[in-house]
Amino acid sequence: MKALIIAAGNGERINHITDGKPKPLLDVLGLTLIERAILSAKKAGINEFVIVLGYKGRAIKKYLGSGEKHNVKIEYVYNREWKKENGVSVLKAEKAVGETFVLLMSDHIFDYRILQNLIKKSRSKCILCVDRSPDAYIDMEDATKVRTDGKKIIDIGKDIKKYDAVDCGIFLLNKEIFKAIKESVKRGETSLSAAVKILAKNNKIEVFDIKNLFWLDVDTKKDYVQAKKLLLKNLIKQTDGPVSRHINRKVSTALTKLFLKTNTSPDTISLISLFLSVISCHFFVLGNYFSVILGGIMAQLSSIIDGCDGEVARLKFKETKSGAFFDAVLDRYADTLIIFGMVYGFWTLTGNLLVWIAGFFALSGTLINSYTSDKYKAEFCKPFVSRKMPVGRDARCFIIMIGAFLNQVFYTIVLLSIFTHIENLRRAGFVKLKNLNPGGIKKKI
Amino acid sequence: MKALIIAAGNGERINHITDGKPKPLLDVLGLTLIERAILSAKKAGINEFVIVLGYKGRAIKKYLGSGEKHNVKIEYVYNREWKKENGVSVLKAEKAVGETFVLLMSDHIFDYRILQNLIKKSRSKCILCVDRSPDAYIDMEDATKVRTDGKKIIDIGKDIKKYDAVDCGIFLLNKEIFKAIKESVKRGETSLSAAVKILAKNNKIEVFDIKNLFWLDVDTKKDYVQAKKLLLKNLIKQTDGPVSRHINRKVSTALTKLFLKTNTSPDTISLISLFLSVISCHFFVLGNYFSVILGGIMAQLSSIIDGCDGEVARLKFKETKSGAFFDAVLDRYADTLIIFGMVYGFWTLTGNLLVWIAGFFALSGTLINSYTSDKYKAEFCKPFVSRKMPVGRDARCFIIMIGAFLNQVFYTIVLLSIFTHIENLRRAGFVKLKNLNPGGIKKKI
Repeated sequence: MKALIIAAGNGERINHITDGKPKPLLDVLGLTLIERAILSAKKAGINEFVIVLGYKGRAIKKYLGSGEKHNVKIEYVYNREWKKENGVSVLKAEKAVGETFVLLMSDHIFDYRILQNLIKKSRSKCILCVDRSPDAYIDMEDATKVRTDGKKIIDIGKDIKKYDAVDCGIFLLNKEIFKAIKESVKRGETSLSAAVKILAKNNKIEVFDIKNLFWLDVDTKKDYVQAKKLLLKNLIKQTDGPVSRHINRKVSTALTKLFLKTNTSPDTISLISLFLSVISCHFFVLGNYFSVILGGIMAQLSSIIDGCDGEVARLKFKETKSGAFFDAVLDRYADTLIIFGMVYGFWTLTGNLLVWIAGFFALSGTLINSYTSDKYKAEFCKPFVSRKMPVGRDARCFIIMIGAFLNQVFYTIVLLSIFTHIENLRRAGFVKLKNLNPGGIKKKI
Repeated sequence: MKALIIAAGNGERINHITDGKPKPLLDVLGLTLIERAILSAKKAGINEFVIVLGYKGRAIKKYLGSGEKHNVKIEYVYNREWKKENGVSVLKAEKAVGETFVLLMSDHIFDYRILQNLIKKSRSKCILCVDRSPDAYIDMEDATKVRTDGKKIIDIGKDIKKYDAVDCGIFLLNKEIFKAIKESVKRGETSLSAAVKILAKNNKIEVFDIKNLFWLDVDTKKDYVQAKKLLLKNLIKQTDGPVSRHINRKVSTALTKLFLKTNTSPDTISLISLFLSVISCHFFVLGNYFSVILGGIMAQLSSIIDGCDGEVARLKFKETKSGAFFDAVLDRYADTLIIFGMVYGFWTLTGNLLVWIAGFFALSGTLINSYTSDKYKAEFCKPFVSRKMPVGRDARCFIIMIGAFLNQVFYTIVLLSIFTHIENLRRAGFVKLKNLNPGGIKKKI
């Protein structure tokens, strides 16, 4: 299935911040708006695109080319009448798209899962994605409102008074849309909404609720600022521990913006994080209070930057399994080095041999801690999520920093040792108990 | 879909070893023959069974009941004419099965993947599973031979001279089979093969090649011995390291037979393996040469018995994800304890503090070693298999035992440390390099 992307308009309300480029080429956290549309669709499983160009179309075509850079196929259609409303742009692509296709706007950002869910739907009717509870940042004055009755559309337009949903600018369409546009153009109406109204009258379109997934039409500078906020907010992962969620992500997303500007690759960031752990180890080995504090700060910084590689990868649609694997292996070495530094430094300073025993079990607890969560994912093919006592790398590094500030290296190691092992045993028990009754008779085949 | 299992015959050639029980109730490594058929089918996704009883049918029904014990549904059909050939038994079940069904023999053992593959096939025709290259242990004199032309059956029977395949006794059938049996019974032929011949003549049956998967018809004592061998041989896993493959499995399968006799649960075996590691740790802590040797032997024994929990689980169709998780977490604690014992024992004996540093990195390398292989599985949803330098728990424990015999605890720890870390870095590099080009444009949706 192809995706049709409308990139013909002149985006006059935002042109003052685009440096003379057309709006689809506006950079939002390392990717242009239109690249975000393309790569979101690609992540949802779509690899062929038709882009309708108009205002400054040549610049867009020059920038995207045939799509090779993003490993997709792009065709272009020109709409000389781009000053008319967007229905005309869709009509120009009639011959370029197949029986059914997805329609996207080049200036909307959205969660790729909206599209992923949409293309699973039956393709017998056209479908318009709607948001039934739009967030406060959606500009309701400019939004296309929809009045629905269940899945049916009763009315649609920017100026209707009664409505219960907002048009998200994401469609699953078939050839019926072209008939409808032609009909509405004859009547002198060139907007897509006018055509949708005709489809609705003939019972040829339904709405699809996007639920709580995000989308945003980037029309103004305010929207642009909001778009960046939204994308960063959506980097928080379900598996994030409390320290990561409430502290690290706030710093890491700020750093991620920097990494995006300098075009640093996720793997390089993983290596920077490991390097900070090496420095942390070095400071801990020195053993004196001042060094220990620096060691603690470096450990926490390493943990924070450890979040950036994934953030950059997700924001640039460059997430790879091998990248995640590489990062995870480096993290385990970072863990090893930091604990080794603490043990070695404390031992040379005090000669207390107990720290080796405590360190041995802190290391074991720490590594088995990571092991259990990934072993769980390996066996059950879903991440281990538990809100009760989520002990991950974020919590461990944070505790190490606090311990360093308090100059309590030994007790920090003992604490790490105790609480990682308790968590590991809890996980083993949790999995055993939860799976004592693995469900009744399986479904029929 | 239901599976029809024929359990009506009297198995006269094997009755001298069944203790007066009917052949389907013959115990083969902890499960009766008919339970193996049921549980293999269940593993392939079938949960409803119809069993045709005849000779000593009451004993079979009493043993299996309604299937609750195995979480399946079992119905029974009686065939008073069980002295006739097996076509009659199939016919008796006409009303109990659905439009299409699987037909199995209660005295055949087989790899469940044969059935898993079979039920994915188109159900427009009947299908007979055949073995085109039967292993040497198949009794060719007694086997039902098949002459084929591509997927077509040219001839079938025990006494045909020209043949290129053997009937495995596994079928995917539809209602046509009953018409064919009725027709052949009219002609005075009551065997299933006679009915298959009629189906073949009318182009209503095809053959399906089981490739290299195992099956065996258990008719004689020789077959019975071979069946046990086959089942044990198939416990070797694709991910087994060289020590496991060539040494541990030989011992562990022998021990597994014992565990099956005593009905020990897989989780209990996991705990026994951990307990042996605790003993190993204890002996290593004592530090003198004799204790060190015992410690090494216990470590290796723990590694061997670590294979038994999975073997018992697989042989009894009791494999669970939570069991695998539980076992894996215990293994990491076993690893920790054994290395700790070695380090602590050597240190108290010699006072050499270097052993702590070496031990620290041996522990890290060991745990990250297990981590990488499971992290790989978590990310890529397939096991990490590499024949180049497969370093797993089997190799580590074996090296520890050899080191203990040589009384070289320190160098064993150093060796462990070096080669686990080399392997870990190799894995990280391997995954990165292999995935630099993650394939071209994805398939169309």
